[in-house]
Amino acid sequence: MIPFRLGRVGQPAQRALQRQCQRRTLTSQTSSRRRVIFSGIQPTGIPHLGNYLGALSNWVKLQTSAQRDDVLLFSIVGWHALTLPQDPTRLQSSREDMLAVLLAIGIDPTRSILFHQDHNRHHTELCWILSCLTPMGKLRRMTTWKSRLAASRNASSENDIDDSLLNAGLFSYPVLQAADVLAYRATHVPVGEDQRQHIELTRDLADIFNRTFSRHNQPPLFPLPEYVEAPSKRVLSLKDPSSKMSKSSPDAASRILLTDTSSQIKAKIRGAVTDSIPGITYDPLSRPGTSNLLTILAACTDSDVVQVTKRYENKGHGHLKSDVTDAVEEVLKGPRTEFERIRHEKTFLEQIAQKGALQAMEYSAATIDQVRRRVGLS
Amino acid sequence: MIPFRLGRVGQPAQRALQRQCQRRTLTSQTSSRRRVIFSGIQPTGIPHLGNYLGALSNWVKLQTSAQRDDVLLFSIVGWHALTLPQDPTRLQSSREDMLAVLLAIGIDPTRSILFHQDHNRHHTELCWILSCLTPMGKLRRMTTWKSRLAASRNASSENDIDDSLLNAGLFSYPVLQAADVLAYRATHVPVGEDQRQHIELTRDLADIFNRTFSRHNQPPLFPLPEYVEAPSKRVLSLKDPSSKMSKSSPDAASRILLTDTSSQIKAKIRGAVTDSIPGITYDPLSRPGTSNLLTILAACTDSDVVQVTKRYENKGHGHLKSDVTDAVEEVLKGPRTEFERIRHEKTFLEQIAQKGALQAMEYSAATIDQVRRRVGLS
Repeated sequence: MIPFRLGRVGQPAQRALQRQCQRRTLTSQTSSRRRVIFSGIQPTGIPHLGNYLGALSNWVKLQTSAQRDDVLLFSIVGWHALTLPQDPTRLQSSREDMLAVLLAIGIDPTRSILFHQDHNRHHTELCWILSCLTPMGKLRRMTTWKSRLAASRNASSENDIDDSLLNAGLFSYPVLQAADVLAYRATHVPVGEDQRQHIELTRDLADIFNRTFSRHNQPPLFPLPEYVEAPSKRVLSLKDPSSKMSKSSPDAASRILLTDTSSQIKAKIRGAVTDSIPGITYDPLSRPGTSNLLTILAACTDSDVVQVTKRYENKGHGHLKSDVTDAVEEVLKGPRTEFERIRHEKTFLEQIAQKGALQAMEYSAATIDQVRRRVGLS
Repeated sequence: MIPFRLGRVGQPAQRALQRQCQRRTLTSQTSSRRRVIFSGIQPTGIPHLGNYLGALSNWVKLQTSAQRDDVLLFSIVGWHALTLPQDPTRLQSSREDMLAVLLAIGIDPTRSILFHQDHNRHHTELCWILSCLTPMGKLRRMTTWKSRLAASRNASSENDIDDSLLNAGLFSYPVLQAADVLAYRATHVPVGEDQRQHIELTRDLADIFNRTFSRHNQPPLFPLPEYVEAPSKRVLSLKDPSSKMSKSSPDAASRILLTDTSSQIKAKIRGAVTDSIPGITYDPLSRPGTSNLLTILAACTDSDVVQVTKRYENKGHGHLKSDVTDAVEEVLKGPRTEFERIRHEKTFLEQIAQKGALQAMEYSAATIDQVRRRVGLS
């Protein structure tokens, strides 16, 4: 599962990676079919099973299935985390946690560019330049912003409230996200459904830039990146299956963390809310708790949920929970062991982060250089 | 007038400057009385006499009168220029023009840190971080934003219009300006009266940062910068003395550029709108054109306008205009000659820009490093 070793991250490997990275940079101007895949995750605590099955495991699959020429960039987006209040000590620690988690689940830094967004200032420069092309109205229409607005006042209607106390970073969030993607001229962006509108904005901004700054028959600088839908695996809270599994729920028993021990997993699944209907059927509307366990089981065993359900037609919740426990443990034990092994290898994690930063900056430099030329800043 | 020579900008000078810069950085943590002076100007064409007498000549005076320990930073703020549509070729050329102008009027790169803002990405990183601390309401209250809003719709009242089509960069402009100042922990900011509210915002943001991120008895990171009022020399249009001399007026005869030839200066002042009242008196309300010429004469000869006026009690406009022409020519001929000498010395200008960028980045690195630590990004 873990395709790299500590010993492989030395100077020669680093130089090889630099060459590889440079080659990719050059290729980017010649090949048009090659995919550049970018995705990011905020460093806000250890991911839970929902994050893993819904997003992160998909990154590993993309890495495995990618063509040789494809470039993969996976980023821990610290600057985005600042749009909500953060405890600095915890944020610092979460950044390291997330790097260790991504390595532990199988993101291979010799194949993918794995890096901290906040190590590459090309993102904030491009964010500024793009913000000068972003109409205020477009940002105000983002549903993420509108829901923040509504939440900030517990308002029943978005029209009832004003945004005076919300911070400007939260408002500009989608512009920084566009910069994250466009700094690498990414072609494919696998993110959650709730981010789809941001990818539309990214395409709009790419298009505005291309049209505004492509004179003298220059080809357009940015490809219009495609939203890549992850196979939808919406994992629900174990305690309140009417809502998604969430980092922010006050009930820790509602979620399984990637670092949970075998006995924690067992206890949480045993305590999962289901229903008192005899037998097992897949019916997300009227049996959300039971269906959620089936979703988890199917996802952890890479099976179809209808096929999985058939096996439990004549069985009870106890049997299902026991099998779900085994399946989750089977999926998480490798990452958990690896996480424990590397989490406190500070030097190793710093080396990985530095190498990733170097690769990311080398890769985005060509784009930023072009952006600066086209807008007249060099 | 021009305190540097081409030949002095070599490797040894550069190393000396680096040492000087490092020393200043260290001093910044120990001395509290030392001033750090920051100001910026947009690269939007050759400055006119109003820019020179109202702002730029003040920079040179600050440089001359500064204490040995004071740090002076003068920046050409290209990223700010992007908040309005720019022709890329012209912007590129204007950036070089402005650097040459600042050198030509006497900004000494061996004494002051003279640099392109857009060469130091610490500004955009800090801008992002500060934007996460800036309430939307504060930005909406900026009068510069409100006047843009009003102008964008030719609206009579600011309440009549919405901001949907204005760009987000224009809205965030004051946050980038705060980052420009705070990246160097500047203590003094000489800018125009119209920017006073932005300096208030900068102080607010410095204070919010200090209070939010100064735990464990850490001293506050940012001093609260003081607005420095330049001696008010409001130079008016030569053709319409009801408004300021302006770069954007369609009538080129309404302004004197720093690069205007002797005969252009003469023609423009001869054609200046005055009045048909006999004799010369200083009365800005009822005789704005005549008073404007007296203001220019006093400023160019470093005299008091009342004293200057006395000398013309019994003289006519022709006499006054002739003396104003001589005084303006006397002030501008040195900078103009120097500008012509260096403007096309591309390599020299690039060296100056590179050295300035290096000094600026070295100076702001200590601040950004502290900012990152305090917010939890390292």
